[in-house]
Parts: sequence; structure tokens; C-alpha cells
Amino acid sequence: MPKIKIVIEYDGSQYHGFQRQKNVNTIQQEIETAIRNLTGEIVSIEGAGRTDTGVHALGQVIAFKTDASIPADRWSLALNSKLPPNIFAHKSEEVPVDFHPRFSAVNKLYKYKIYRKRQGRIIYRNYALCSEEILNIEAMQKACSLLEGTHNFKAFCSSGSSVKNYIRTIYSCELNDGEEWLTMDIKANGFLYNMVRIIMGTLLEIGRNKISPEFLTQLFRVQDRSLAGPTVSPAGLYLVNVEYPQEEKSQVP
Amino acid sequence: MPKIKIVIEYDGSQYHGFQRQKNVNTIQQEIETAIRNLTGEIVSIEGAGRTDTGVHALGQVIAFKTDASIPADRWSLALNSKLPPNIFAHKSEEVPVDFHPRFSAVNKLYKYKIYRKRQGRIIYRNYALCSEEILNIEAMQKACSLLEGTHNFKAFCSSGSSVKNYIRTIYSCELNDGEEWLTMDIKANGFLYNMVRIIMGTLLEIGRNKISPEFLTQLFRVQDRSLAGPTVSPAGLYLVNVEYPQEEKSQVP
Repeated sequence: MPKIKIVIEYDGSQYHGFQRQKNVNTIQQEIETAIRNLTGEIVSIEGAGRTDTGVHALGQVIAFKTDASIPADRWSLALNSKLPPNIFAHKSEEVPVDFHPRFSAVNKLYKYKIYRKRQGRIIYRNYALCSEEILNIEAMQKACSLLEGTHNFKAFCSSGSSVKNYIRTIYSCELNDGEEWLTMDIKANGFLYNMVRIIMGTLLEIGRNKISPEFLTQLFRVQDRSLAGPTVSPAGLYLVNVEYPQEEKSQVP
Repeated sequence: MPKIKIVIEYDGSQYHGFQRQKNVNTIQQEIETAIRNLTGEIVSIEGAGRTDTGVHALGQVIAFKTDASIPADRWSLALNSKLPPNIFAHKSEEVPVDFHPRFSAVNKLYKYKIYRKRQGRIIYRNYALCSEEILNIEAMQKACSLLEGTHNFKAFCSSGSSVKNYIRTIYSCELNDGEEWLTMDIKANGFLYNMVRIIMGTLLEIGRNKISPEFLTQLFRVQDRSLAGPTVSPAGLYLVNVEYPQEEKSQVP
């Protein structure tokens, strides 16, 4: 049975996150329903990231096995005819059956957006953290560079996570300060539960001069969640891109 | 009875426009209900612009008479406690009783936003016209400068309007071409029904090289709606600001 990989964009503001749950509206359920309406098949899709309630995706990756006769590259077009207006299928392709959107990924890129003006706070309320406060951007950028590298991120992980290994490698963490928008782009080999939102919450505490950038190195050592910043709003968070080894593509028959 | 003026921001995507209508959800109705819940008064608010279904406002202006004992500058705070999350009251102040948000205005500024990338089209679907097409920006900018000045805009007015005078003065019309966003800021002494959306639709036809910028001067003369471009999506339209003569403020007792 062939396996199809599709890059998915969604507006998470009306959903209880990606993962299927009882009695609430989720992205996974919407996509599985769309596939069922399209082909009659009952499939269980795999996703690259289990985005939370209110979190958005520009480039979530899903995969599933199918017996339908739809050509791999036409799957996105076919699926879009059944998906609601807040979910969209971009590129689709066939992948090896052992491909898994999460376990095959080599890195993921998340973006966090902060809107900095008063006028516009209603328009962007579901798509950014809206905050006009004055921030020490230089200290925040210093902190971003200290986050890069391989560290123990247990202090940046919400309870309720079942992982044992808290070590992750951040390949890049960049803060871009514009007139209207302050954005963080963070790329890592993996992310713990709520990790990006806690990192942003901690960067904001640094921006308020409540803690120093250097305190991050203590957090890596002490590994105490209560010493890091708060988990900020999901509205500003976007799963932008998931990268896979080049070989995945060339292995497709 | 004192008169209060409030600057209002709203996300129009869930509303059937500003003006109260039977059996549908409108901005006017939401604000009037909020005032009623706050003070018990049944008021009829006046607005500066009757934005259509799906059109947004960063700086709509409303006014109403009230006997409530709320200080003028505290009205916005009080109202926000009763308004839904997609409507927000910015600055409030007392104005002379003969002030009218529409008739006292000296100019209005609208913005039209076009999102130019493929990734993000779902996130922005209710907040922009999403189009990746290649456009002749230079021709569009030439057209913007031809729009400026006093002209007969009958060709840029949808039917169903009851106005007799189609002459308006555009003080400025600027197109800003960024990597992700193409935006038009247009300021005039007044706008006809759907005028900004038809102007944008006509600019896009010019950007596609289907008509020349100079054709605009013929449209002013021939005054034929069917020769102008289509009425583009309301999602990209924002009422940004309404300006009043300086004297209004100093006349407040």
C-alpha cells in the first residue's frame, strides 16, 4: 500500500490542536474525515508535530497509507476539495512506507510572532502575541545566541510530557525586530512539550530585564521549570517547516 | 445630553458589516448591545463608514448621546468590558452635540492588503486578498498617481448606491510593494459604495497589463462601471483612520 506525504497549512485558532481527541474539533480529525469523504478509506494520519490548541502551521507534514488511485502529486488538489477553508494541502508526494513525518524529520522550524502596536491588536489577536511593552532587544538577542547548541531543556518543558531525554540541539535561534513585528525563528532537531512558548516567555523576561541572558546557562544546569519564564500564548506560534534527509525523496520508486 | 466619540477597531470577518440589519450579526448592533448592557440606555450609534461584510476597521469612529455618568475618557475602558473579543474601543472623548462621525470628517484613510506568497494564504484568508500572480507594479504606481485629485468616480461605484454626486477628491494613493505584502493606502474626502475595492480591482487589471494606467482618465470621463475592474474581496480592506478638523477637539467644554 503506497504512502503519501502532504505539506499542510492551517489556521489553528478554531481547533483544539492537531491530535485527534474525543468530542473536540482537531486538525487530524478534519483531515481524516476529508480523506474518508474523498476515497471512502478510514485512515489514521501521522503528523510531524502535535501542535496545541490555537497554534498554527504553515508547513505541517502528514503521511498516510492509501489504496486510492489518486496520483501522488494530485493528492493535495483532491484533498483541498474536501477540506474546510482553514486547512489547506500544499505539495503532495509518494514516500517510502517506512517514512514517518515525525521520526524521519531531521529538523523543524517554528516561528513566534509578537505584534508591537496598539492599533491592530484585535485583527492579530488569534495570530500573534500582542504586546506594546518596551523590551531590551539586545539582551534578548544575546539570549538567543546562548540557546543555540546542544543543551538540557528540561526547564523549558511543561509537565505532562512523557519524554525521558530532555537534550535537544537548537541549530539556530534568531530574533528579528521590526517596527510592527518582533519575530523569533527557531530551528532544532526536536522540541519538548511547550518548549518554544516557554523559550519565548523566558526571552520576554530577559527583555524586561528581570533576568539576565546568562541565566539561561544556569537553567540548562538546574533544569527547573519554575525558574524559566511563563508559557506564552499559542496564538503567536507557527510550525513553519519540517526538513527530511534528501535521500527520502530519491528513494521514492 | 453629552455626546461621546469613540475610535473602534474590529475584525470584520465574522460580521455582516457595520450597519444594523435584521437577523444578522453586525458591528453596530454589537456596540449598541454593549452600551445597553453597560448603562441600560437604548442608543443608536452613528458611524464614520458603513463597512461591508468582511471589511475590517483599525480606526472606525462612532458617536452617540448618553446620560450615563461615565467620564468621557473612561468610556472605552468601560465599553471593552462588554464588547466581544473581535471589537475593541480605543480612545474615547466628549464632542460637541453637532459632531457626526461621517459628516464632520474631513478625510478617511483606507488600506487594502494583498498577500503575495503561497505559504500563508490560509492564515491570511480573512485579512487580505491572497494572490501570487506577477504584477506590473510600475504601471500600478503610475495609475495611483493618476487617481489622485478631484475626479468623477461613477465608474468606481457599485449599483445600489443612492448618491447623486460622484465627484470625490483623492488626497493620496500610495502603493507599497514588499516581499510578502502589496498594500495600497488611499485617503480621500469621501468614498462611494465599494469604491476602494473597485479601484483595487482596476489597479490589478493594470498590473496584469490588461488595461493601461492612462485608461483611468477615460473612466473618469465615460463613467461606466462595466469598464472598470472587478470588486475585489472585502477581506483585504481596512478603514484605518478618520480625520476631523482640529477645532472639534478644542470646542469640547
